[in-house]
Amino acid sequence: MIEQTEFQYRLKATDGAARLGEVLTPRGVIRTPAFMPVGTAGTVKGMYPSQVRELGADILLGNTYHLMLRPGAERVARLGGLHELMRWPHPILTDSGGFQVMSLAALRKMSENGVTFRSHIDGSYYELTPERSVEIQGLLGSDIQMQLDECVRLPASREEIARALRLSLRWAERSKKAFESQPKGRALFGIVQGGDDPALREESARGLVDVDFPGYSIGGLAVGEPQDVMLRMLEVVNPILPTDKPRYLMGVGAPDDIIESVARGVDMFDCVMPTRAGRHAQAFTRFGKINLKNARHAEDPRPLDEESDCPAARDYSRAYLHHLIRSDEMLGSMLLTWVNLAYYQSLTAGIRAAIAEGRFEDFKAGVKEGWARGDIPAL
Amino acid sequence: MIEQTEFQYRLKATDGAARLGEVLTPRGVIRTPAFMPVGTAGTVKGMYPSQVRELGADILLGNTYHLMLRPGAERVARLGGLHELMRWPHPILTDSGGFQVMSLAALRKMSENGVTFRSHIDGSYYELTPERSVEIQGLLGSDIQMQLDECVRLPASREEIARALRLSLRWAERSKKAFESQPKGRALFGIVQGGDDPALREESARGLVDVDFPGYSIGGLAVGEPQDVMLRMLEVVNPILPTDKPRYLMGVGAPDDIIESVARGVDMFDCVMPTRAGRHAQAFTRFGKINLKNARHAEDPRPLDEESDCPAARDYSRAYLHHLIRSDEMLGSMLLTWVNLAYYQSLTAGIRAAIAEGRFEDFKAGVKEGWARGDIPAL
Repeated sequence: MIEQTEFQYRLKATDGAARLGEVLTPRGVIRTPAFMPVGTAGTVKGMYPSQVRELGADILLGNTYHLMLRPGAERVARLGGLHELMRWPHPILTDSGGFQVMSLAALRKMSENGVTFRSHIDGSYYELTPERSVEIQGLLGSDIQMQLDECVRLPASREEIARALRLSLRWAERSKKAFESQPKGRALFGIVQGGDDPALREESARGLVDVDFPGYSIGGLAVGEPQDVMLRMLEVVNPILPTDKPRYLMGVGAPDDIIESVARGVDMFDCVMPTRAGRHAQAFTRFGKINLKNARHAEDPRPLDEESDCPAARDYSRAYLHHLIRSDEMLGSMLLTWVNLAYYQSLTAGIRAAIAEGRFEDFKAGVKEGWARGDIPAL
Repeated sequence: MIEQTEFQYRLKATDGAARLGEVLTPRGVIRTPAFMPVGTAGTVKGMYPSQVRELGADILLGNTYHLMLRPGAERVARLGGLHELMRWPHPILTDSGGFQVMSLAALRKMSENGVTFRSHIDGSYYELTPERSVEIQGLLGSDIQMQLDECVRLPASREEIARALRLSLRWAERSKKAFESQPKGRALFGIVQGGDDPALREESARGLVDVDFPGYSIGGLAVGEPQDVMLRMLEVVNPILPTDKPRYLMGVGAPDDIIESVARGVDMFDCVMPTRAGRHAQAFTRFGKINLKNARHAEDPRPLDEESDCPAARDYSRAYLHHLIRSDEMLGSMLLTWVNLAYYQSLTAGIRAAIAEGRFEDFKAGVKEGWARGDIPAL
């Protein structure tokens, strides 16, 4: 086996606009379409890293904002990097920190240079510039890094969206320059912005392709707009992006968002939905979403899905899951997080197999039929 | 292999007063001295049942008070019993519920007949009598059940202690009668009370031996009295109890309490200490107790115990554990609970091996030396 020293994307098959591929990195192969579980602060909440791996995850996401505040980027570097710290030797993707500065930090101040803010944990002062964001992601040891961008909340005026995307384009160039000193084999992605405006999305995508990145992220979507607006933007952006580079739709999403975005040429996804829902009594299954807090489960001896490969979905009764949730027991969150990540990984594995065999549309219809049929009623 | 249909204790070796044995039950063998992890409300907090088993636990403890309130004894029975509900096919011991009624419930009222109280969860009204306690434990499917007793808080007057132990003795007889209808192979233990008074402890033990139980619990200790008082009581009680029956010291304790109680002839233990401490940043190790919240661990790359068989103690750095705890991440509690239960199981496994080889005193001295030496200082 030849050691992979570069970052590469290989398109292996297409089925309509859906793409089957592989992202090759020195730390391992990422089979795409891929779902990346979110390991916010250096842990996928409620899961051992070995479990996450066994579910079929090739890559995790880490949040630069959380990690720069605690334990701190320089400290993580002294401890051997994020992979070593969290016992995850496989690829890690990090965001730029910008999105969470905007949603979590206090006293934010934007300028051409970057953003200053105070930590939501202890109020201490930080500055995040395109250069510092890339530096932090380098200190973490991230395999796939994101440029700092400005993501505007929708609805927003065309002027505001245009201003932010043009700032993000200038930051894309600064980020790329700052990234040059990093070890070979890592990648920096540019981020397409442009809100819900097709022309601005196009401007952003073309601008980033000119800068030239080894992969492209699509940001500023799934921020409250209807699904059809998001899908429309993908239909505008993806044909502009080079076919020989991976495309990552940031922060998306529900299973239906994923399958529809794959149908429009997206390769990579991340979302807190499966993990967060797992801590709030929600299970994702072949039969749709199930709320285990509901009293109808209290005496239901059936597992969530007896045909699942996931022990949490197959071996424990709904009655037990309901009891754990009602009793606020950690094991309830642990089991439902496991169920949900297993479902997301099995969904993307199914998508990959279907594209390989040229039956993606049938697969998509079958999956949606299962969701529509809904949960098997209790006897 | 012959199917075990009865409850039996086999004394295999002694070393001083320390006893090596086996409790045989239809659901499996319990190697003694045994530590029983506490599965309060049908789950050992923060652990998958398979993990608990892999650490070497032969038996778990369930709390009748918690389970009778939620999900309810009749409901558990309809769902196939507690073993089926929590996916633990091995032996389960249950307490009588009395102790937690006294510490958790509202508006308690004691009488000769039993105790009435209101649920701390929803205020609903319950009655717990010796007969109902045994009935509930039977509905749960418990393999080793406890008589209802009255445990007085120390310090207490001699009269109060005497009154409670005599009531408990009368309840012992009622419990035994109520237990007669249960399937063969289960056991009901009588509980020795008598506070910190040697003569009353003796009266209680002799009274229970006259009633005749397949095993004896020692209750009302580790309730705030000094360790030497507890050990003195064991020295009074254990010589009275029959050598061919197991002895269970309820709710004990710290590792040092366990090793000293084994030295005085105790066979079985349970305690929330390893699990509760695990949720509060405390690790039990060969080097004593370590508080991972302490800032000195923030950049310590060493694991808690690189020679441990437990992945949580061996594979994760103290810096990472510290980070998880400071960030209030579930994985911190999960890993430290795992570390602690692994330590308790390795301690009892070590005790058993030492008794088998007639070197218990040396083993005890060696273990205490390790605790006294303390944690290896960081570089």
